[in-house]
Amino acid sequence: MREFDAAPAQVFRAWTDPELIPQWLGPSGTTMTLIEYNATPGGRYTYVHRNESGEHGFRGVFHTVVTNERIVQTFQYDGRPNDVSLETLTFEDLGGRTRVHIHAVFPSVETRDAMIEDGMEHGVRDSMSHLDKLLAS
Amino acid sequence: MREFDAAPAQVFRAWTDPELIPQWLGPSGTTMTLIEYNATPGGRYTYVHRNESGEHGFRGVFHTVVTNERIVQTFQYDGRPNDVSLETLTFEDLGGRTRVHIHAVFPSVETRDAMIEDGMEHGVRDSMSHLDKLLAS
Repeated sequence: MREFDAAPAQVFRAWTDPELIPQWLGPSGTTMTLIEYNATPGGRYTYVHRNESGEHGFRGVFHTVVTNERIVQTFQYDGRPNDVSLETLTFEDLGGRTRVHIHAVFPSVETRDAMIEDGMEHGVRDSMSHLDKLLAS
Repeated sequence: MREFDAAPAQVFRAWTDPELIPQWLGPSGTTMTLIEYNATPGGRYTYVHRNESGEHGFRGVFHTVVTNERIVQTFQYDGRPNDVSLETLTFEDLGGRTRVHIHAVFPSVETRDAMIEDGMEHGVRDSMSHLDKLLAS
């Protein structure tokens, strides 16, 4: 859960516009290359993060996209192609501000722990902080 | 987990061919209408089951499709549009026979219990039995 000082329409746009995604998604110190990002039911996304540890690819498909309200998508790190997770994002209108709920489910507790160890938590924290700055600008 | 007396290629085909799906998927006493079934990464599926209790729509997207080996897909019953689950199917070659592993994760324990109450377990059992007969024919 994270709050942003912007209306749901702005936050949702930052989350779904292929022009804006590379400006905030990913850990600090990483170069982001967006290959595909089609936020519509059945649409796919693919991107690559490059840093001193190498290249890291990510991909998924969108199951649900309700404008300004809700996204359900799959998520896969190419380093663990058998461990797909399912993410539900909800954009709650707080009257000018927006609360984003992110709920992820993993095929197993082991997968979840492995993904956290891979730095997912750290990447999400950095991303949210970049998004904060983007929405303020 | 369920075993079929057919090679993985045959079982996988029954699972992904839009001509074959309506011949086995769904509980007994149900009319199946396949609207869309595109088993490819990013492809979608939509179908409707009709029985004396009414119409029940189901939909999802395919995340992973590895021919004869593996499918990862989302699953949604339209009666509970906010409860999306993620299913992983693995086709294990037993030398002429095939063991299919189905692993589903739900956003919460409540969702899982509600889906079982809706008759999902019963529907899966019937489907597997129809598939058995189709593969034998």
